[in-house]
Amino acid sequence: MAYELYYWPGIQGRGEFVRLALEQAGADYIDVARSEGPGLGITALMQGLSARNVTHPSFAPPYLRDGDLVVGQTAAILLYLGPKLDLAPEGEADRLWAHQIQLTLADLVVEAHNTHHPVGVGLYYEDQKPEAARAAEQFRAERIPKFFRWLESLLEHGADGAPWMVAGRLSYVDLSAFQVVAGLRYAFPHATEAALNKAPRLAALAAQVAALPRIRDYLNSERRIAFNTEGIFRQYPELDSPA
Amino acid sequence: MAYELYYWPGIQGRGEFVRLALEQAGADYIDVARSEGPGLGITALMQGLSARNVTHPSFAPPYLRDGDLVVGQTAAILLYLGPKLDLAPEGEADRLWAHQIQLTLADLVVEAHNTHHPVGVGLYYEDQKPEAARAAEQFRAERIPKFFRWLESLLEHGADGAPWMVAGRLSYVDLSAFQVVAGLRYAFPHATEAALNKAPRLAALAAQVAALPRIRDYLNSERRIAFNTEGIFRQYPELDSPA
Repeated sequence: MAYELYYWPGIQGRGEFVRLALEQAGADYIDVARSEGPGLGITALMQGLSARNVTHPSFAPPYLRDGDLVVGQTAAILLYLGPKLDLAPEGEADRLWAHQIQLTLADLVVEAHNTHHPVGVGLYYEDQKPEAARAAEQFRAERIPKFFRWLESLLEHGADGAPWMVAGRLSYVDLSAFQVVAGLRYAFPHATEAALNKAPRLAALAAQVAALPRIRDYLNSERRIAFNTEGIFRQYPELDSPA
Repeated sequence: MAYELYYWPGIQGRGEFVRLALEQAGADYIDVARSEGPGLGITALMQGLSARNVTHPSFAPPYLRDGDLVVGQTAAILLYLGPKLDLAPEGEADRLWAHQIQLTLADLVVEAHNTHHPVGVGLYYEDQKPEAARAAEQFRAERIPKFFRWLESLLEHGADGAPWMVAGRLSYVDLSAFQVVAGLRYAFPHATEAALNKAPRLAALAAQVAALPRIRDYLNSERRIAFNTEGIFRQYPELDSPA
């Protein structure tokens, strides 16, 4: 039975971390809210968010249905899917470590989103531009470099020379690291290139993921939604600055 | 062998979610950074954060050592500890569900922290007070009620009348829900009471957790650090407002 991915149509957002894993695995999946027909579309997405309709309603998309099992929260979805898609390491300790890195990438994603919504998600960017300018300045100067230093240190010390984040093999963590780098390059091109210059292993990892045949095909397909200013990573030139 | 919890001394912070589980289980643990002696104290905490010293360095505290295994990220620590402490449900689906709720509580914690640090963690609150005032207003008006509605709906529809969040039994999720309610009551007393008035099951759950004998003893002990304005939940009266 096909996996069913429920996420907002029109943006990559957090759903993209799940999509990349499904695509790299060549898994059969339905992108429910982007599909038309009975039980599909945005209505189906919204119905799955209410405790009146489902046993385990997510607070927010994305969530995934696999037969009777429904799971939300991006990192939890990947914790569940990773082994099934052969995109997780073997053994509890390494799986927990992969999950820990994924949760840290999720923290970075929250901070990236915060740069254009520091006051709150209930207001438009246009209603919080002065606050966003200050938040983005901090994010560019302090946070991107700090997260990249950590990721680079894992690649330098942890993987016995392998180009992957966990246990010397490709996992969903690598796909997510690629996505974070891609998103930051879109949103903060100057700051991100400057930080990547000091994190060559991370830059190489991102390039290797982009060159995986299935990922390359996916990125060139219509299934890959273009980055835009509705998603997590937004290109507002005033929030980036020349390095 | 005793569990070793590594977290900043002086604040409850994210470490508290782990402490509550260890305390409720009556587990043998060392609060490393709050202890003195060889291999203890803040130096030990800092050493465990570098890839030069350990195989799986956390990006930030808390992290837990259990023999050879080291795990960071609060929700991942509880995912690991829950079954060992008999504070997790049985079965993969319910354990994943408990983890999903925990990750959503973690999202709420991030947003609570953001109210006093909307511009960035690298600046003091005093350097971002206007931004914080706007962020707190949004958080009080929109986010606390939304998260509480979700938690209340789980208690209403999910648990067959049981007062606990998952599978009709006490789990680490209940302890964390209590902690979030306690922290929000400290930081935003007016807004939180108003939201709890509309979430009676959540209020009852928090009261039941506080009345568990081991939790009650812990809360009355010196091991429980008082809430203060260095932690995640901070009482700045200007960020709360009469309901």
